Amino acid sequence: MIIRHEREALPADLSGETDVQGIELLPLLTEKEGAPNFSMRLFRLAPAGYTPFHTHPWEHEVFVIRGDGFVLGEEGSHPLEAGCAVYVPGGEKHRFLAGPNGMQFLCCVPQVRKD
Amino acid sequence: MIIRHEREALPADLSGETDVQGIELLPLLTEKEGAPNFSMRLFRLAPAGYTPFHTHPWEHEVFVIRGDGFVLGEEGSHPLEAGCAVYVPGGEKHRFLAGPNGMQFLCCVPQVRKD
Repeated sequence: MIIRHEREALPADLSGETDVQGIELLPLLTEKEGAPNFSMRLFRLAPAGYTPFHTHPWEHEVFVIRGDGFVLGEEGSHPLEAGCAVYVPGGEKHRFLAGPNGMQFLCCVPQVRKD
Repeated sequence: MIIRHEREALPADLSGETDVQGIELLPLLTEKEGAPNFSMRLFRLAPAGYTPFHTHPWEHEVFVIRGDGFVLGEEGSHPLEAGCAVYVPGGEKHRFLAGPNGMQFLCCVPQVRKD
């Protein structure tokens, strides 16, 4: 059993990322912890922060734990608040954006992905 | 893309469960939503509530979102608070217990499990 508080997690290096603003990515439970099937990461978005508007073959399972904002898809944007779960299927374009209070969410992804 | 707030989720029927106390299980993102690899569920434990002390072949990836309590393993109990991530490997006995404030946590499991 592995127990780690989010304050103990080391932020991922996002210096090479483009089309992002005010985001921090904290890997919590990954292959490094021996997780065989999927990884759990915490995203912290500053007010007005956003993740890239992109797509990839693997799915996202997201849960908003603090703050609020939006998820943007091809068909428009949807408001998000703490307690919202979001399923983004593989191949669907998406971007998460924080409102004035910032937004923090868990994002789980399968290990079969390429990054 | 599927967006659902936890207040829209229907609690699972736990009437046949034994060795549990004061727990509610809300499936959020599962096979029903098309999730191919893993499911995200929300557990709500009332004060002093607990999940079964059991084991199974699949892993848990847990994140405490509200309240506090403990996770009990073969080797003893560990305190938990909001912000704690817990990895329970397949085959390891475990129980989650809430403190006086109750505890709510996400628990993700692979689809390859038997239940």
